[in-house]
Amino acid sequence: MLTLIIAESALETIPESLWNHPTIRKLSKTRRRPPSQILLDRSYHHAAMKNLENNEKRGRPDIVHFALLEALGSPLNKEKKLATYVHTLGNVTIQIDNETRLPKNYSRFVNLIEQFFETGRVPPNRNEKPLLMLKKQTLTELIKEEVKPTRLLALSRAGKPQTLEDAISNLAKTDKACVLIGGFPKGHFTKETLELADETVCIDPEMLETSTVVSRTVYEFERALSLPQKRLRQAGGSS
Amino acid sequence: MLTLIIAESALETIPESLWNHPTIRKLSKTRRRPPSQILLDRSYHHAAMKNLENNEKRGRPDIVHFALLEALGSPLNKEKKLATYVHTLGNVTIQIDNETRLPKNYSRFVNLIEQFFETGRVPPNRNEKPLLMLKKQTLTELIKEEVKPTRLLALSRAGKPQTLEDAISNLAKTDKACVLIGGFPKGHFTKETLELADETVCIDPEMLETSTVVSRTVYEFERALSLPQKRLRQAGGSS
Repeated sequence: MLTLIIAESALETIPESLWNHPTIRKLSKTRRRPPSQILLDRSYHHAAMKNLENNEKRGRPDIVHFALLEALGSPLNKEKKLATYVHTLGNVTIQIDNETRLPKNYSRFVNLIEQFFETGRVPPNRNEKPLLMLKKQTLTELIKEEVKPTRLLALSRAGKPQTLEDAISNLAKTDKACVLIGGFPKGHFTKETLELADETVCIDPEMLETSTVVSRTVYEFERALSLPQKRLRQAGGSS
Repeated sequence: MLTLIIAESALETIPESLWNHPTIRKLSKTRRRPPSQILLDRSYHHAAMKNLENNEKRGRPDIVHFALLEALGSPLNKEKKLATYVHTLGNVTIQIDNETRLPKNYSRFVNLIEQFFETGRVPPNRNEKPLLMLKKQTLTELIKEEVKPTRLLALSRAGKPQTLEDAISNLAKTDKACVLIGGFPKGHFTKETLELADETVCIDPEMLETSTVVSRTVYEFERALSLPQKRLRQAGGSS
């Protein structure tokens, strides 16, 4: 079982300090939504974000979108051996059920998350099984009180150089393995985040996309469990 | 060196038979472009596509978008050991230069491809190095006259069951390796496509997303070249 946390994710609604910026007011009119219900997106709000604190790490819902598609579409997830969380820079946890099928289309994903931030769950109807669940909590609370991994690996260029294969095959030996992957476009995990990890590993000298790291991490975990062989065999293959 | 071809890709402008459909006419007005210059996209044209021949395999630019982001962001591509092509259901080849940085935002990607289909190259200025190049040709022409691989592997659920690791480590022994991955949402490669392949391999009993298969294929090729270790070592790491 692997728990994947996309951490310090660049996913939030437009912060109050930008609500009066001309481009944001115009956008709010076009989209017929108050800025408080619109996701911050550097693709559209680049100019408005200029004076925003820590802005290089913020406003990239596409990173979370791609990363989740890679995680949820994996054989590991289909086997329910993957638990996926997004934790945001604004201390929100999103827990994603294995059976969730997210929209592939970016605008539809953005609409879904905007609705989700309003209602706190998807589907909003409490009689249906929740696919996305929201909690206000710190990353420390998520890890120490909820996930409680027996071993926590952070992937970061600030870590010690090791191949992903070695890092994950080691990690897979533990009972409740957890991997932290950054959900932001630039910079590094904070010191507080890194202190939560049992080890921090650098898998490549250059920065890799979040979705690429998620895809490879999940795949290496599958390999460590011999899942590719098992699934082919179960299907009657002669691998 | 690996050549990756995203084949039978669901990427085309709106076909003439749909130009008079009410939703297409409305869209054309809103976007201020003739339908002939707008990408077919099931996300928006689902109703209009209902009577379109072979419609289950068509109108999914997002599949090509994600797949290309995974290919171009990989260490293999950064090392220029990856050549990436998209071949479409309408017999168009798009050759993508290693240094291309595609927009992460979906709408910007769609705009870029629409402009590209008009001009045949990106950037349109002939004095600048081309990043995307267009050619009208069949998949057979692309493979037999241009790529000329010494071995061609197609990944398809119609193939013989084998792990991706085994398939790619075998393939990497050849000089000019080439992999075909489907760039469509449902169904299988045509018989003509499969006949071009030296072997066809099924890596999982369930359908996997194109971007996932691209990501894993490129990663396995990197592993076959010991690229993860080499890159960490070159950077002064002590893997």
